[in-house]
Amino acid sequence: MSLLIAGTVAIDNIITTKSRQDGLLGGSAAYAALAASLFTKDVHLAGVVGHDFPPSYLDLLKSKGISFDSLERSQGESFTWTGEYHEDMNVRDTLKVGINVLENWTPKLAPQAAASKFAVLGNMSPDNQLQVLEQCNAVEFIAADTMDLWINIANERLHDVLKRLHLLVINDGEAKQFTQTTNLVEAGRRLQEKGPKYVVVKRGEHGSFLFGKGVEEFFACSAYPLSSVFDPTGAGDSFLGGMVGWLAGAGKTNPTFTDLKTAVAHGSVTASFTCEAFSTQRLEKVSTEEVKARLEELKTYTAFAS
Amino acid sequence: MSLLIAGTVAIDNIITTKSRQDGLLGGSAAYAALAASLFTKDVHLAGVVGHDFPPSYLDLLKSKGISFDSLERSQGESFTWTGEYHEDMNVRDTLKVGINVLENWTPKLAPQAAASKFAVLGNMSPDNQLQVLEQCNAVEFIAADTMDLWINIANERLHDVLKRLHLLVINDGEAKQFTQTTNLVEAGRRLQEKGPKYVVVKRGEHGSFLFGKGVEEFFACSAYPLSSVFDPTGAGDSFLGGMVGWLAGAGKTNPTFTDLKTAVAHGSVTASFTCEAFSTQRLEKVSTEEVKARLEELKTYTAFAS
Repeated sequence: MSLLIAGTVAIDNIITTKSRQDGLLGGSAAYAALAASLFTKDVHLAGVVGHDFPPSYLDLLKSKGISFDSLERSQGESFTWTGEYHEDMNVRDTLKVGINVLENWTPKLAPQAAASKFAVLGNMSPDNQLQVLEQCNAVEFIAADTMDLWINIANERLHDVLKRLHLLVINDGEAKQFTQTTNLVEAGRRLQEKGPKYVVVKRGEHGSFLFGKGVEEFFACSAYPLSSVFDPTGAGDSFLGGMVGWLAGAGKTNPTFTDLKTAVAHGSVTASFTCEAFSTQRLEKVSTEEVKARLEELKTYTAFAS
Repeated sequence: MSLLIAGTVAIDNIITTKSRQDGLLGGSAAYAALAASLFTKDVHLAGVVGHDFPPSYLDLLKSKGISFDSLERSQGESFTWTGEYHEDMNVRDTLKVGINVLENWTPKLAPQAAASKFAVLGNMSPDNQLQVLEQCNAVEFIAADTMDLWINIANERLHDVLKRLHLLVINDGEAKQFTQTTNLVEAGRRLQEKGPKYVVVKRGEHGSFLFGKGVEEFFACSAYPLSSVFDPTGAGDSFLGGMVGWLAGAGKTNPTFTDLKTAVAHGSVTASFTCEAFSTQRLEKVSTEEVKARLEELKTYTAFAS
């Protein structure tokens, strides 16, 4: 089924303890769209790029069947993000952000994108997320991510977004910050009270928690184990794109909790590939067979007899 | 089958953000023995207590069928630990340690304890752990825990212990410190190279990782979800006691990886009860039916269809 993915499309500069690479493909929507394209074929990308955006990155996205009908090409410079990872890959510093074309951007959806049944609002300002939602005229399942910046400077608008969501996907540190609790189980439940029927709290190397109705609908998904993480940038966006991409591919506009668990597992495994190379360099080469193989491994790695 | 549990038996003073309680039952062996007694009935406790040790705590342990044949009563004062938890329960400060009777203690095993098939070396000095092992004359499965203190001040002796172990259980921060890596999967593998055939890395609220042979023998066990943690003291010791207690109860002296996964799940669930009240106050009341119920819940909480 049709899936709209809105968010940032960026040029990233990434520094790890091992290496540095500049001018990489990045952005929440780029990762999410690539991830989703593994599971569904009618993906519309809504975002904005500048005059300096490398054509090869657009070619890459196009080669995955991703539609650019709502991707704006602006005369300004592309949004850029420069970040540095520490020895502990869970810790990173943002060194520089170039807002550039994002500053005055208003998303405009083409008719086909606006008619999508699924919408992913990748990490971007709550204003932009709401502008996208206002144009969606057939959406049945809405998922979004956010970050600490928006919790801090656009809290009220973010709450407006939350009221519209079926699914919020957020990382553990931000979930705690947002709900003023140090307990992740409690944090998930408090986030549900803000609107979303379902909440996923991403826990990095530990996996994720999915919260549904009551105490019975709870899923602790482990991460696919990686003995070496090369670059975790975009792992969360890949998770979101893989998760909702699987739902869209399976046509689950009104998913059961069992469906959502399967979707989370797909998102988790998809994100594991993203961590294995700079930028989208591993994700863009993943086959559905590789995803299936890791899913089966993850099942073995987490199952037990009582 | 017979199970020897050696370690500290302590008087704890615990401060949380909600409350403070002094003179509590504590110590690695006390928690582990109580946990193990849920699953097996021939448990021998090796440790030392002072003249001031509350008789009611000894009565409690005795009521669970735990043998005191190797528990020394000394004229000195009992080992005490005073700790404070922060709002984030994952962070705690040790405020005071009274070594007391532990200072000149040499474990002496009674013949029946020395003939145990299973041995748990709870957190105590590697010297004491080795002294216990030297007296074991029929042991077929040896498991141990340790802590940052011994990694720092008794590293060589700790390595001597590791060479004797079938199973090392260690928490995530200590695993990283010990192996000089920030990646937990890599840390587990490096610990195996030091001797233990199996390694469990405890991850607090996230659960634990079990490492066996090669990449295929890996188990990511989620923690039983708790929306409120009252006092996590002894959770790791309860995990170890529950895990090996289950193996001993099932007579698995040469466990398969499937057996060990089941044992880890039992340890994990047992630890969840410990966190729900001060000291052993919840653990001592747990029934095997409650353990079974949480195990089934944990299975549901972690299973997915692919």
